[in-house]
Amino acid sequence: MADCLFCSIIAGEIPSKKVYEDEWVYAFEDISPVAPHHVLLIPKEHIASVNEITAENSAAVAKIYEAAGKIAQQLGIAQEGYRIVTNCGEKAGQTVFHLHFHLIAGRDLQWPPG
Amino acid sequence: MADCLFCSIIAGEIPSKKVYEDEWVYAFEDISPVAPHHVLLIPKEHIASVNEITAENSAAVAKIYEAAGKIAQQLGIAQEGYRIVTNCGEKAGQTVFHLHFHLIAGRDLQWPPG
Repeated sequence: MADCLFCSIIAGEIPSKKVYEDEWVYAFEDISPVAPHHVLLIPKEHIASVNEITAENSAAVAKIYEAAGKIAQQLGIAQEGYRIVTNCGEKAGQTVFHLHFHLIAGRDLQWPPG
Repeated sequence: MADCLFCSIIAGEIPSKKVYEDEWVYAFEDISPVAPHHVLLIPKEHIASVNEITAENSAAVAKIYEAAGKIAQQLGIAQEGYRIVTNCGEKAGQTVFHLHFHLIAGRDLQWPPG
């Protein structure tokens, strides 16, 4: 999608530190990490937010979570543990309107989650 | 699964305040809410955590996220915004080993998410 930061990252037009990629999913290091491990997982298909997830496109989310487990293995944090967070809407903290999931690990994680 | 708190809730053996239910998903109010809206979404199939998500069972996660959008509409928070969080592993704060997603809304949400 034109003018979408994350679509541009997927297309390689904007550089990113890639962590993982498959047919459905692209994952890269967050440029403003909040923990020693902070990876963004995004579907290659442009979906604006959770509000736009339907039966027609939800398979992309399944693939995101399959990828999350693989990335946790790859980073050596599967047993230590990690948190996955998605924000829907500006008031919840969503700043890029291409669905994305924050995978956070490597330090004690507090509760509540924000 | 025997001795799983959330399987017992799905089976109705332990009471819960149901928010939403379909063929795949059960959602109910968290008993220790951290915000005015705090719903737990769980797959009816017992999956222990994100580490156990595979191509064989990941469709349940797609259904969870379809349900999340519907619940947000139902609660009137779709436009206001919300956060969805899952913890994988004890060190990340997972206390029940049946995959679950916290949908949180109704107040300002801070960053980082814990």
